[in-house]
Amino acid sequence: MARWQPETTQRLIVAAVDLFGEQGYDATTVAQIAERAGVTKSTFFRHFSDKRELLVAGQETLSRLLAEGIAEAPADATPLTAVGLGLERVAGAMGPANRELGPRLKAAVAASTELQERDALKNIGLAAAMSTALLARGVPEATAQLAAELGLLAFKRGFARWTEDDRTHDRGLAHHALAALRELHAAATSLG
Amino acid sequence: MARWQPETTQRLIVAAVDLFGEQGYDATTVAQIAERAGVTKSTFFRHFSDKRELLVAGQETLSRLLAEGIAEAPADATPLTAVGLGLERVAGAMGPANRELGPRLKAAVAASTELQERDALKNIGLAAAMSTALLARGVPEATAQLAAELGLLAFKRGFARWTEDDRTHDRGLAHHALAALRELHAAATSLG
Repeated sequence: MARWQPETTQRLIVAAVDLFGEQGYDATTVAQIAERAGVTKSTFFRHFSDKRELLVAGQETLSRLLAEGIAEAPADATPLTAVGLGLERVAGAMGPANRELGPRLKAAVAASTELQERDALKNIGLAAAMSTALLARGVPEATAQLAAELGLLAFKRGFARWTEDDRTHDRGLAHHALAALRELHAAATSLG
Repeated sequence: MARWQPETTQRLIVAAVDLFGEQGYDATTVAQIAERAGVTKSTFFRHFSDKRELLVAGQETLSRLLAEGIAEAPADATPLTAVGLGLERVAGAMGPANRELGPRLKAAVAASTELQERDALKNIGLAAAMSTALLARGVPEATAQLAAELGLLAFKRGFARWTEDDRTHDRGLAHHALAALRELHAAATSLG
């Protein structure tokens, strides 16, 4: 799904998302995914514990990149500046394959409650990774949690816009995620 | 689980949470839950589609109360004031049974990935209910989404503090949820 994914992992994800789109998540078996990807079932199980885990492939890498970007922000960076650096770090690791697969993955998730649940827990994990990295910088707890939620919303909104963006004038995921973060920050000042 | 729950529903939830705590979620069957609650399995299935659905009992009611409180806020109320009224509406419908059951339910969720996933999706549903109600008031989309996230965080933080609060000087769920909302609002001004 990204430059950080070894080739077989990537092939399995693409095969699975294709099949989910063609025949639905419930009707798709691990055997079918392995066959489409040109590998054996046991190869599948060396990469994923079950078909649902395909959805969250890269979650650990995403969490790590977000946390690294936040941790390496200058000492005087505000919480949102640090979150922005985390988003840039993630964006730098995502390429055309992510962009192409994103909308199809989203459609598969939208069609399956089971995948929606798994996706919801994935998002909590990403927010927790950001929040933990902010706490380690000395950001107060409530601020850290809120900044992490903004980071998550910005990532989701930015990713959606990136996949919808004009291919010929691609402004990149980082551009869209940071624009979404600024927008949410402006919204935060008009809440109460 | 609350005043809005008919007695049998309430009994099934208490029985389930007891069993989840005693022997774990995975090991607990619908038959055991029904037996503990003193009803038949078919009575169980008239109330819930499966044991996982017990967790989200009341989600629709919660969503409705949040949305009603927001919709009925004065026309000139800020987004967060409207969210606060939604939280007060929910708090007014929650009693000692919710308070007593909350920590045990939380422990059951913490011990089961399946329940964590279901819980994560429930939270998304609550935020969506608030966000939709805010959009209907003419709140801009980014602000509505952010205010809904703050409302969700305030509800979770307030509920946790309510269950930990000194029983003899109970300040009520509304008090704790609104205090958490004010705290998050203050945090929102120190983000960037």
